[in-house]
Amino acid sequence: MADRPRDPNKIPVAVLGATGAVGQRFVQLLVDHPWFELSALAASEQSAGRPFAERVNWVIPGDPPPWVGEMVVRSLEPDLPARIVFSALPSPVAREVEPAFARAGYAVCSNASAFRQAPDVPLLIPEVNAAHIDMIPRQREAKGWPGLIVASPNCTCTGMVMPLRPLHDAFGLERVFAVSMQAISGAGYPGVASLDILGNVVPYIGGEEEKIEQEARLLLGASQDGRRVAADLIISVQANRVPVLDGHTVCLSLGFERPPAVEQAIEVLCEFRGPKVVRQLPSAPEHPILVRSEPDRPQPRRDRDAAGGMSVSVGRVRPCPLQDLRMVSVSHNTLRGAASGSILNAELLVATGYVER
Amino acid sequence: MADRPRDPNKIPVAVLGATGAVGQRFVQLLVDHPWFELSALAASEQSAGRPFAERVNWVIPGDPPPWVGEMVVRSLEPDLPARIVFSALPSPVAREVEPAFARAGYAVCSNASAFRQAPDVPLLIPEVNAAHIDMIPRQREAKGWPGLIVASPNCTCTGMVMPLRPLHDAFGLERVFAVSMQAISGAGYPGVASLDILGNVVPYIGGEEEKIEQEARLLLGASQDGRRVAADLIISVQANRVPVLDGHTVCLSLGFERPPAVEQAIEVLCEFRGPKVVRQLPSAPEHPILVRSEPDRPQPRRDRDAAGGMSVSVGRVRPCPLQDLRMVSVSHNTLRGAASGSILNAELLVATGYVER
Amino acid sequence: MADRPRDPNKIPVAVLGATGAVGQRFVQLLVDHPWFELSALAASEQSAGRPFAERVNWVIPGDPPPWVGEMVVRSLEPDLPARIVFSALPSPVAREVEPAFARAGYAVCSNASAFRQAPDVPLLIPEVNAAHIDMIPRQREAKGWPGLIVASPNCTCTGMVMPLRPLHDAFGLERVFAVSMQAISGAGYPGVASLDILGNVVPYIGGEEEKIEQEARLLLGASQDGRRVAADLIISVQANRVPVLDGHTVCLSLGFERPPAVEQAIEVLCEFRGPKVVRQLPSAPEHPILVRSEPDRPQPRRDRDAAGGMSVSVGRVRPCPLQDLRMVSVSHNTLRGAASGSILNAELLVATGYVER
Amino acid sequence: MADRPRDPNKIPVAVLGATGAVGQRFVQLLVDHPWFELSALAASEQSAGRPFAERVNWVIPGDPPPWVGEMVVRSLEPDLPARIVFSALPSPVAREVEPAFARAGYAVCSNASAFRQAPDVPLLIPEVNAAHIDMIPRQREAKGWPGLIVASPNCTCTGMVMPLRPLHDAFGLERVFAVSMQAISGAGYPGVASLDILGNVVPYIGGEEEKIEQEARLLLGASQDGRRVAADLIISVQANRVPVLDGHTVCLSLGFERPPAVEQAIEVLCEFRGPKVVRQLPSAPEHPILVRSEPDRPQPRRDRDAAGGMSVSVGRVRPCPLQDLRMVSVSHNTLRGAASGSILNAELLVATGYVER
Repeated sequence: MADRPRDPNKIPVAVLGATGAVGQRFVQLLVDHPWFELSALAASEQSAGRPFAERVNWVIPGDPPPWVGEMVVRSLEPDLPARIVFSALPSPVAREVEPAFARAGYAVCSNASAFRQAPDVPLLIPEVNAAHIDMIPRQREAKGWPGLIVASPNCTCTGMVMPLRPLHDAFGLERVFAVSMQAISGAGYPGVASLDILGNVVPYIGGEEEKIEQEARLLLGASQDGRRVAADLIISVQANRVPVLDGHTVCLSLGFERPPAVEQAIEVLCEFRGPKVVRQLPSAPEHPILVRSEPDRPQPRRDRDAAGGMSVSVGRVRPCPLQDLRMVSVSHNTLRGAASGSILNAELLVATGYVER
Repeated sequence: MADRPRDPNKIPVAVLGATGAVGQRFVQLLVDHPWFELSALAASEQSAGRPFAERVNWVIPGDPPPWVGEMVVRSLEPDLPARIVFSALPSPVAREVEPAFARAGYAVCSNASAFRQAPDVPLLIPEVNAAHIDMIPRQREAKGWPGLIVASPNCTCTGMVMPLRPLHDAFGLERVFAVSMQAISGAGYPGVASLDILGNVVPYIGGEEEKIEQEARLLLGASQDGRRVAADLIISVQANRVPVLDGHTVCLSLGFERPPAVEQAIEVLCEFRGPKVVRQLPSAPEHPILVRSEPDRPQPRRDRDAAGGMSVSVGRVRPCPLQDLRMVSVSHNTLRGAASGSILNAELLVATGYVER
Repeated sequence: MADRPRDPNKIPVAVLGATGAVGQRFVQLLVDHPWFELSALAASEQSAGRPFAERVNWVIPGDPPPWVGEMVVRSLEPDLPARIVFSALPSPVAREVEPAFARAGYAVCSNASAFRQAPDVPLLIPEVNAAHIDMIPRQREAKGWPGLIVASPNCTCTGMVMPLRPLHDAFGLERVFAVSMQAISGAGYPGVASLDILGNVVPYIGGEEEKIEQEARLLLGASQDGRRVAADLIISVQANRVPVLDGHTVCLSLGFERPPAVEQAIEVLCEFRGPKVVRQLPSAPEHPILVRSEPDRPQPRRDRDAAGGMSVSVGRVRPCPLQDLRMVSVSHNTLRGAASGSILNAELLVATGYVER
Repeated sequence: MADRPRDPNKIPVAVLGATGAVGQRFVQLLVDHPWFELSALAASEQSAGRPFAERVNWVIPGDPPPWVGEMVVRSLEPDLPARIVFSALPSPVAREVEPAFARAGYAVCSNASAFRQAPDVPLLIPEVNAAHIDMIPRQREAKGWPGLIVASPNCTCTGMVMPLRPLHDAFGLERVFAVSMQAISGAGYPGVASLDILGNVVPYIGGEEEKIEQEARLLLGASQDGRRVAADLIISVQANRVPVLDGHTVCLSLGFERPPAVEQAIEVLCEFRGPKVVRQLPSAPEHPILVRSEPDRPQPRRDRDAAGGMSVSVGRVRPCPLQDLRMVSVSHNTLRGAASGSILNAELLVATGYVER
């Protein structure tokens, strides 16, 4: 590590909880990031002081580059050589550590659920609610810290809300039925026991349904003068675990104030680009939503990696006998729904000046 | 076969389409049936004249008994030594062959979709709509045949409609939102390519959603003077294929005329026994519906075999933000939802005198 | 439990480690055993004093009967109302607890690896080496205890050694090359993480290869005057974990002193019945080895349940370019290779008088 | 397509059998190839004349680029605007079509098995036996054609032979035991039925074992004056299908003339680079063999994509009780073992002047 020269044009960043499954994704994505330079890896006390390669059980394909494997893991103290920290910490740990980093001046881009519903923490998907970033000045004032915390939503919520955004804007969404079929990687490592899921469906994920219902309303809500107002929607989610490695699938039925024809809905989905400030970000996909026309798509194994795992694939847009429209959404839960989503949030912080270049 | 003596107390039965996946289930179940004696196996011309063991690619666990393996496969002509024939034929073949057998005096218990929606063919789940059997006299009169045809519904429909029956009777079902996660065995053999489903979800099964929506209304409808009236319900189904061997899972949200409390719904489900005439049938489970109280059940791999694959397991009965109740149902698609279901229909024909003992 | 009357004609038995995955199999198998009556369930201190249903995470299909769910779990003290105890304890615990039970007079039928290679503990597969039971008098003398311990071998070893027994006897086995593909249930619960095994092969199971190599030599060895002599064989095992629920598959290549023709080997395998005393035991299969003639069998999912999971299926018997014969073996790892195997050992103890009826 | 300008610095190439699973891999890899330009797609008569997007059931992740989807599929006539053709044809078709193309002057890089064992067709893995390319002049002379055919070996053979090459050179390989666990994609599409492989192992792949045994001897053999001599090795292969999407795993036991220590073998594997002419090819990996030191690697899902699917991962190098060394090899069966392997062959043809730049 000592030998690796710093790139003065990049912003030094660190990963908190680097040895876990989402932490590994952060590492993988930050190794070659055009704006950020991976400068520190931090984890719990058991790992601190040891080379990363020795402490990590690398569960994603391939290997980290040798120079990353040689990085000495730091403890979770806010003394890291970084300006942005990406948090892949377990929520109970995040609850203590993330504010400590914000207090010490770091911009914390969190993937933990600890502060997702905190009233002054923006829960952020740049294409969906970039404007919520204006909650930060209030957060800093209320907390009295020079740093900041922004949170990424639940991985299933992300893939579900992305297509809802333009449809809500165009047609006034009122009611959402959602049934998810979620990949095992969403539960981290070791996570789901193979004896539970091989050749099986587990129709329950503790706390997941409530999280998705609540976070979706926050994400689709407005932010006025730095205050967020949840959207006035009724959402019913049923969450299932299925034997899929990566990629969450959601079956949706939607009811609108101004029900669109199928073609109108498809057009709106296809044309969605997100706010202008987001489109230029290095991790932003050209098409946040890809609409597939095949009868049997999207599928998690075939569509999760669209645009490097950043586009949400939507298909089977068709009428619903009970509400207005049905459709299926697939998104990559550990990329768009976790690590890449937080990195996109960090890019937005830079583009909007909350983190200096 | 010549050596195997007939049991004069049993009714001779045959299987049409015996070499296919559902045909094999029929064979497996009829080998030791208390009322029926497996007397003939029939299949397409390629197989006719050859020993069953030579023509079948046995895809279910274990082996057929040697005496069955030695049975010479017959062609699909209505000259079989049987009074009841169980049809596991592909629908285009069933459309020709099943009426020929009814015309020749056989009672045809069909698992094919050919006549499921024909106006004078009872679509039958004994616990759900045994009374529809009174359509048979009209069928015989209209068709002028001495035999009869009764059909079993789509496998997913079966597991979904079973819990709807008592809830509809008690609380007046109005709206059903259903998302299925269906096992690969539902597509027969070779059926789903492993390259399509391994570690994947396919959110589409051709024609399935419409079938389930339509058949459910027929099953829950009334029969008056031998005429069937579809129930006045709105049903929205989204069908998915998942990498599960056997056992279809359905996530349900239900809206009622008289919405019950969760406890009331559970009580009604637990107490459901089906009509009295059905309870005595040898294949009828003591509890057509098993209500599970664990938060993460029912699961297809763990619950599909309940009561020999004849009980439907229901769990996660809880309120729905959008309608009244949510729940999850699991049923065995090739037993209750196919072969065993047709055999139960045949037992009902015997118990009600449409087939003489 | 209080209400359940004892059957005076049955031998009371207990399960140690009843809440684990193998413990559950013991419970399932003992509920209706013709000779044994399930009288007590014991587990670690956390579970003791609580109803079984409350402490068990039942991972095998179906449910335990209600009366078993109501049994209060006992601690692992040798004061259980039983004469035989089946041990499904983790090995470190078994090392302490099993001798304590033997010392207190119980017959311990262990599925743990703790004493599998102890010089005075018979490692037993009744069809393979029933004569090793004559090690018990020496064990009792050496240890000075009125009870006894017999051990079941490693689950993979069981399915591999069964076909080797008659081949060794007939043709003098000298060299065994084996590659296993083992089911996830062999690792207990939670065991293998789904993130490790879904759509994957893990070519390593810690300590497994050595265990199989050593135990196979013990099982095929002779016992003279209560002393066991390992067989003089060279065995090379490579162990892999594959995404299969139950059923271990082993690819074998065998070298013999007197190489048989393929037909001779098949004949010897087909005719194998095991010692006379074993054939009458209630859990003994009629055919310990089933030879399959299809080119693509045996397969774990289709053949593991042969004879209630007690027969080992062998197929693809064919020449080997490098040694004499190749073949494939499939056995049920948690039945024949674990719980059922230990129960068969207990039956042998009864039949040979080591446990009184 | 008309609008897409030709790059005069690239060699125009075509894919025969472009709509199949391996054909799709060829398309995917050739879209951005630095030396080759994808100029035509050909397939059977049913597809000819239609846009590729309309005829292909794209089974690999993602989508082909739009300009490829718009290419009109050509028939299998040797009038394609290309100098090299990559054949992913079924073998019976390849037997007719490939010679027709060679006769018409094309360089045919075949992935079919049709001519793999033909005496004058080089069976080629550049790192393993680049010298066999000197069979081409004899092939041209014998056949009297201006073009040529080179074949890629069986996908499992490729991953097995790669590590054998340097070991054979250094220590004189004499005997090979191999047991493969092969991915479903090796069987093409639709290929393996999900009902056969989900949660199962199929210990048989028709003709596979013989192919691997024979091809391995050809690949490791010498070529003298354009004549190939098979290596004098004894090889025993047992082939299994496992529920893995991509990536073949082979467990090996090796016997040598001059048995190496484990460390020596590892060193030889690590240092292997292949012939100098191969190292410069654009698809050649820097390390044809990656030696892993973790106890539980290589694994197909985690290691198949090493170096873009071109490196073979080897691990668990350890002594064998029966021969000298055991080890495990993992390779990507549809990249290194199929499409990428053929493209590397084509690059070698260019580098050695058999195809002009």
